[in-house]
Amino acid sequence: MDIQHYMNDVGQRARAASRAMARADTAVKNQALSLIAAAIRRDAALLKDANRRDLEAARAAGLAPAMLDRLTLSDQAIATMAEGLEQIVALPDPIGEISNMKFRPTGIQVGQMRVPLGVIGIIYEARPNVTVDAAGLCIKSGNATILRGGSEAIHCNQALAKLVKEGMAGAGLPADGVQIVETTDRAAVGALITMPQHVDVIVPRGGKGLIERLMRESTVPMIKHLDGICHVYIDDQADIEKALPVAFNAKCHRYGTCNTMETLLVAREVAPEVLLRLAELYKTKEVELRADETAHALLAGYPFLSHATEEDWHTEYLGPILAVKVVDNLDQAIDHINTYSSKHTDAIVTENYSRALRFLREVDSASVMVNASTRFADGFEYGLGAEIGISNDKLHARGPVGLEGLTSLKYVVFGHGEIRQ
Amino acid sequence: MDIQHYMNDVGQRARAASRAMARADTAVKNQALSLIAAAIRRDAALLKDANRRDLEAARAAGLAPAMLDRLTLSDQAIATMAEGLEQIVALPDPIGEISNMKFRPTGIQVGQMRVPLGVIGIIYEARPNVTVDAAGLCIKSGNATILRGGSEAIHCNQALAKLVKEGMAGAGLPADGVQIVETTDRAAVGALITMPQHVDVIVPRGGKGLIERLMRESTVPMIKHLDGICHVYIDDQADIEKALPVAFNAKCHRYGTCNTMETLLVAREVAPEVLLRLAELYKTKEVELRADETAHALLAGYPFLSHATEEDWHTEYLGPILAVKVVDNLDQAIDHINTYSSKHTDAIVTENYSRALRFLREVDSASVMVNASTRFADGFEYGLGAEIGISNDKLHARGPVGLEGLTSLKYVVFGHGEIRQ
Repeated sequence: MDIQHYMNDVGQRARAASRAMARADTAVKNQALSLIAAAIRRDAALLKDANRRDLEAARAAGLAPAMLDRLTLSDQAIATMAEGLEQIVALPDPIGEISNMKFRPTGIQVGQMRVPLGVIGIIYEARPNVTVDAAGLCIKSGNATILRGGSEAIHCNQALAKLVKEGMAGAGLPADGVQIVETTDRAAVGALITMPQHVDVIVPRGGKGLIERLMRESTVPMIKHLDGICHVYIDDQADIEKALPVAFNAKCHRYGTCNTMETLLVAREVAPEVLLRLAELYKTKEVELRADETAHALLAGYPFLSHATEEDWHTEYLGPILAVKVVDNLDQAIDHINTYSSKHTDAIVTENYSRALRFLREVDSASVMVNASTRFADGFEYGLGAEIGISNDKLHARGPVGLEGLTSLKYVVFGHGEIRQ
Repeated sequence: MDIQHYMNDVGQRARAASRAMARADTAVKNQALSLIAAAIRRDAALLKDANRRDLEAARAAGLAPAMLDRLTLSDQAIATMAEGLEQIVALPDPIGEISNMKFRPTGIQVGQMRVPLGVIGIIYEARPNVTVDAAGLCIKSGNATILRGGSEAIHCNQALAKLVKEGMAGAGLPADGVQIVETTDRAAVGALITMPQHVDVIVPRGGKGLIERLMRESTVPMIKHLDGICHVYIDDQADIEKALPVAFNAKCHRYGTCNTMETLLVAREVAPEVLLRLAELYKTKEVELRADETAHALLAGYPFLSHATEEDWHTEYLGPILAVKVVDNLDQAIDHINTYSSKHTDAIVTENYSRALRFLREVDSASVMVNASTRFADGFEYGLGAEIGISNDKLHARGPVGLEGLTSLKYVVFGHGEIRQ
């Protein structure tokens, strides 16, 4: 098979289908989502069979246990996929929403209408649930979708694709509204990210290696984030009883997520008390602390202690390791964050009103928080209903990206025969 | 001078200044704009001197009359620049605006804050007024700006730069908040569009040649449009008394603008009457009509008539030429537009409610209109107060781009010590 030719055909079909997707009624889109959910529940056994074949191949290929874990489709995961689709049914349809229609002195009335982006390419690694989650969000937002999952999950993805197609057909949506790339050849990814004429945006879901490669090669805009180097700053006017659980939760609730704290900043005045009390908490989880000079002195005797180097301020550990730095004041904290943060999520703990407002305004990150754990930076927690990814970029969507991030606003003008003078 | 080194320095200064620009108070930004306006009025004679030197050099270099015209800074143009700044003063400050703060079941309150993009690079051709218009919009939206004007306007741009710097300093804004590239070396443009670490977005203001070159080479996102291939569709249920002035105005109000109609579509049933009556109007302006078979037969005898070729549906004439096609119905019109339109601005003339709604929803362009001239697609006409450009892209800003298009939304979380369960 000529991959370039195959992918070009997939792209053309997606572009053609995107017109029908864009004008589909809310009821039709919801019906498709409900039918897919029902088919997933009905065919749970078949899906697990397909998943078993993927897992056997993956084990034979010597895949790492963490990858095997992400590849596994449990009964619970199957139920969650179906429920996820039903949650998307319950979300309001963003498409066609008209806002801010205002009369102008010329007599025309001008406002904006929310419309789909067009064709979304999703590139993801092992997790098979992304197939259904991403398809669901794209269907509801009226986009055509091209899904390219990891080759490890190919059997499972093909089984899911059949169910998605069944649901689309049952509701009368075009078969090419959701396409799953049928080849495991990596050249398919290269083709997908260099067809701006057929694909409007790429959403990569995967590790840093994948995203860095896509960034170098893609000529299609991406909704993506690379790193989650998140900070918590404990101000000298913090309520320590809030600061300790927030700093503990931000690091230890889950280590491998992008909204996990990687660097803790503590104001000099409260550092002795805060660090000693936090050390007791972190010790229970054997968290390694990489401390600057001042913090190192204050933490003397902590069993998992080392000296921070410049490299540590740049590092997303994704594990039980935390960089710790003592700063003089809010200005130093903001400077440090705006220098080293990956612009994902940063939080201050303080009771000082003016400092809270300054932190919110001056820290240049997708999510800025006062007195809350960075772990809340998440589409579900923010009430978006679902999340297709998180964006650290400033253009278009920023932070957790839900249905709205898959849409665009166009101007609409209601006239009455007006001409320009 | 090592251009790469110089531009890197400019970029670093802009990035550093962007923090102070982002936190500047509304009053301070407005003061800077007012001071620049006053300085422009005060130094009108100096500006005209500088402009005279540019014009002499341009004439000596044999610049085309149209370019000389755009380069000329009249008393009126100087007054308009100053007034433009005062209009920007009167606009609400978008920065820091917090919206949709909603409590979540966990206790956190989540919403969004409008923030500057950071550093904006503006690349423009001869018109010296862009220096002031663009600087004004970027100042108000809290961005740092790097302006790179055409080498033909270098004296005038330098004179304006002095006044901008004077106003910035007078209000206490950082001197590097607006920088004007001091070299006419074209390598400076190449450097500016390949510094994503220092520049967040590029706004090119110029002809198609400039923009195509930038698109090929830029690694920084752009807010740009290439073509304005705009359509008017006259439906068979149109009010002909509205259709005629709209179709005449859309073509003949100004030929060289991107929101000018380039292709007219007419429903078969009304084509005989509509085309004959429109021909009378277009004849007064000697508009050449390039007609498809059916329209050509109906227009027999029109003095400036020729046959349209496939190429015509793709062409932005920017002159007194119009492609004309007879279509069977709304579906054919929408198909033609979605195939050939540059996704800038397209209009329908109809009294039929359902067709109007379908056209608005299904035509995939930045501006879609009912019963109004395409010439209204403009930041001032839409009430944005000012316009930095028009975007045909779907991501981020779409259509006329005002202050809001130079901003981004970040998530803000008001917590009370919440941790994630």
